[in-house]
Amino acid sequence: MNKEVHQYVSEDRLRSDITTNAEYGKVPVEQGHCRTVLTGSEANGDAREYFVDRLKRAGLDVRVDAVGNIVGRWVPDGVDPTTPAVATGSHLDSVPKGGIFDGVLGVYGALEAVRAIQQTDIDLQRPINVVCFTEEEGARFSDGVLGSSVASGQYAVEDALSLEDCDGVTLDEALTDIGFRGDGRLDASRWDSWLELHVEQSQRLEDAGVHVGIVTSITGTIRCRVEINGEANHSGCTAMADRNDALAAASELVLEVESATQDIVDANGETAVGTVGTLDVGPNAINVVPGTVELGIDIRDVTYDLMESIVDDVRSCLYRLETERGVTTTFERPYDIEPVVMDNHCITTLHDAASRVGLSALELHSGAGHDTMHIANSTDVGMVFAPSYEGISHSPLEWTDWTSCTAATKIIAEGLAELATE
Amino acid sequence: MNKEVHQYVSEDRLRSDITTNAEYGKVPVEQGHCRTVLTGSEANGDAREYFVDRLKRAGLDVRVDAVGNIVGRWVPDGVDPTTPAVATGSHLDSVPKGGIFDGVLGVYGALEAVRAIQQTDIDLQRPINVVCFTEEEGARFSDGVLGSSVASGQYAVEDALSLEDCDGVTLDEALTDIGFRGDGRLDASRWDSWLELHVEQSQRLEDAGVHVGIVTSITGTIRCRVEINGEANHSGCTAMADRNDALAAASELVLEVESATQDIVDANGETAVGTVGTLDVGPNAINVVPGTVELGIDIRDVTYDLMESIVDDVRSCLYRLETERGVTTTFERPYDIEPVVMDNHCITTLHDAASRVGLSALELHSGAGHDTMHIANSTDVGMVFAPSYEGISHSPLEWTDWTSCTAATKIIAEGLAELATE
Repeated sequence: MNKEVHQYVSEDRLRSDITTNAEYGKVPVEQGHCRTVLTGSEANGDAREYFVDRLKRAGLDVRVDAVGNIVGRWVPDGVDPTTPAVATGSHLDSVPKGGIFDGVLGVYGALEAVRAIQQTDIDLQRPINVVCFTEEEGARFSDGVLGSSVASGQYAVEDALSLEDCDGVTLDEALTDIGFRGDGRLDASRWDSWLELHVEQSQRLEDAGVHVGIVTSITGTIRCRVEINGEANHSGCTAMADRNDALAAASELVLEVESATQDIVDANGETAVGTVGTLDVGPNAINVVPGTVELGIDIRDVTYDLMESIVDDVRSCLYRLETERGVTTTFERPYDIEPVVMDNHCITTLHDAASRVGLSALELHSGAGHDTMHIANSTDVGMVFAPSYEGISHSPLEWTDWTSCTAATKIIAEGLAELATE
Repeated sequence: MNKEVHQYVSEDRLRSDITTNAEYGKVPVEQGHCRTVLTGSEANGDAREYFVDRLKRAGLDVRVDAVGNIVGRWVPDGVDPTTPAVATGSHLDSVPKGGIFDGVLGVYGALEAVRAIQQTDIDLQRPINVVCFTEEEGARFSDGVLGSSVASGQYAVEDALSLEDCDGVTLDEALTDIGFRGDGRLDASRWDSWLELHVEQSQRLEDAGVHVGIVTSITGTIRCRVEINGEANHSGCTAMADRNDALAAASELVLEVESATQDIVDANGETAVGTVGTLDVGPNAINVVPGTVELGIDIRDVTYDLMESIVDDVRSCLYRLETERGVTTTFERPYDIEPVVMDNHCITTLHDAASRVGLSALELHSGAGHDTMHIANSTDVGMVFAPSYEGISHSPLEWTDWTSCTAATKIIAEGLAELATE
């Protein structure tokens, strides 16, 4: 070839696609750029139609599976279409009032990478798939990463289709409404490998002044739902000695989650995080000793055993609270995803790509969940982060400079070309 | 007289009035007896009309003041109507889904005491007033004890009338709707003395197996509203060291309120109570480090300086949290009532009454607020408690045996007669 792949990556094309996509579900804001694109909404339908159109214009063959996952398939001339493809992509749905890069950069960066490769004369050996997964954010039907959990075979198509939003509308109905209830199941285990580009959502790259991040692992996530039941009583008429105050007990638990996690951080480095994100008091009246508290706990680390040890501390704390404070407690663990390690060959490929492009790269872990963590169960995976302004995401203030978007897309383009020529 | 006053107290009449009143605003429940009688509601209008009717049937002259306080005035034959009256009563409004005795026992116990005295030939020297105060519970327009705060001159009539419920309806409009927007202001400073009968709302009498309680003081109440502002952030992407977790900070404050109060209890006896009754987390999402927490704190004791020392501990804790956790805090103190001591002569009169009736009496403080705490600013006050099953109140399970209701009413009848003959 005359030029290297990354030299064909066009910031103009990439920027045009992302800014066009930003119009779907756009929410007026004083500062930043805001959109609400929930799965199966009209805005989601519009965004999907534009994406399909862009895939087709690039000559890709488009398929939509039963849960709305979209795949644009490019089989270069001379390539055996049955050869396992290299796949790349992300998602187009957003949280309510989210930013314009989260997921979108990964989808249109993937397409731009393919368009760049198409301009070269590289002798590819594999098809390339550009993918948009359904309901990554989990803002309407699920806890998130839904389409990739179906593509990796961890969640059944029928179960996914019967999920309901808060108004009782099923995913099946919502996808049918916007014309994206396809057939069959996208099967990620047929892929040779998978790459995902995403904004970082924390500011390690920005702090380090580095062009791109190469992800080494994605933390696992354990979510616990705890209920503490004490006894609601008149705050003026109930002596301190006669109380079973559910909120005082819950406060001990909040601090235990924090200190148990800090102990892990002190001993093993800063990847572990433990958060009590939700706490609801009943009856929540100024003159009533709290009778019930419900807490939602989110625990993450790159090492599952260390996550488990925080959970153990939570359970020990609950046992102690029952004994010392006369409360009763319940404990559930409704969400449990183990940490995922990126494939070494993919990591090496991405480092080589950065060197070729002349960009600095930092290895880091992802504390946020991504579709890649499910796809890792089906094939080799790698992930690239673009720097995100102050680490802000899920907010209209989310921002990644266009040069950073383009730089990270160049890494994907180089990596894809490399993986597809092996 | 042939019989003593208490021998004319009729359990049948008292029970009939309380059970009739229980029909107004009745809420069907599987267990117990439930009613919702908010100030100015149709149920409140019905309850007031029945009360006025009962006052008139007993020969009392009824007046309604501008804020809906009802007074039934009895000037016995030969008594100079300008002589300061002895007054007694309580309230007929309830909390949502409250019980049938709270307030009601004090209103109809007062009327029954007058009916009993009317059957004797005691040579009274003073008029007797039977009183129903407006909005004691504070369930619709205010923080409570509203009518008595107007009658004691601590709250202006116009200010009270312009209070709005959550739908923007004023007290003025609501009272007009039910025909209880009267004229003038009931002035408690014209009274010679005041007695109130109420259910205990804790179980010290039941535990001690004693017939009645004679209140020595009502605790003061300081309410604090605290806001803690940290920084909301992605729970997976924000390292423990980078957090300003508003909920972790708030949890320290909850435990500080508990331990500071316990220190006061350890040093001064069990009258002090400190409660964080409300706690609201923002954004309260499982995957977001809490950015804001609002807390409502309720502090009570019979000694104001000790209450102040708990408030001081709260403020010191907030200062420490700002320094140690990088949060900002706000502190307000919207509700501040000093402890009230009952009049010694009233206490002695009530003890003498218990002796004459042959009932055991226990001196105790009230941790709950009552109209009496405002009236204490205007005249000498005394208060009698009837035992309450397991101390339960503000609940359909609130219960006081009819014999206990009658016994406590006998103390009021004897006490009233004594104070009105002086």
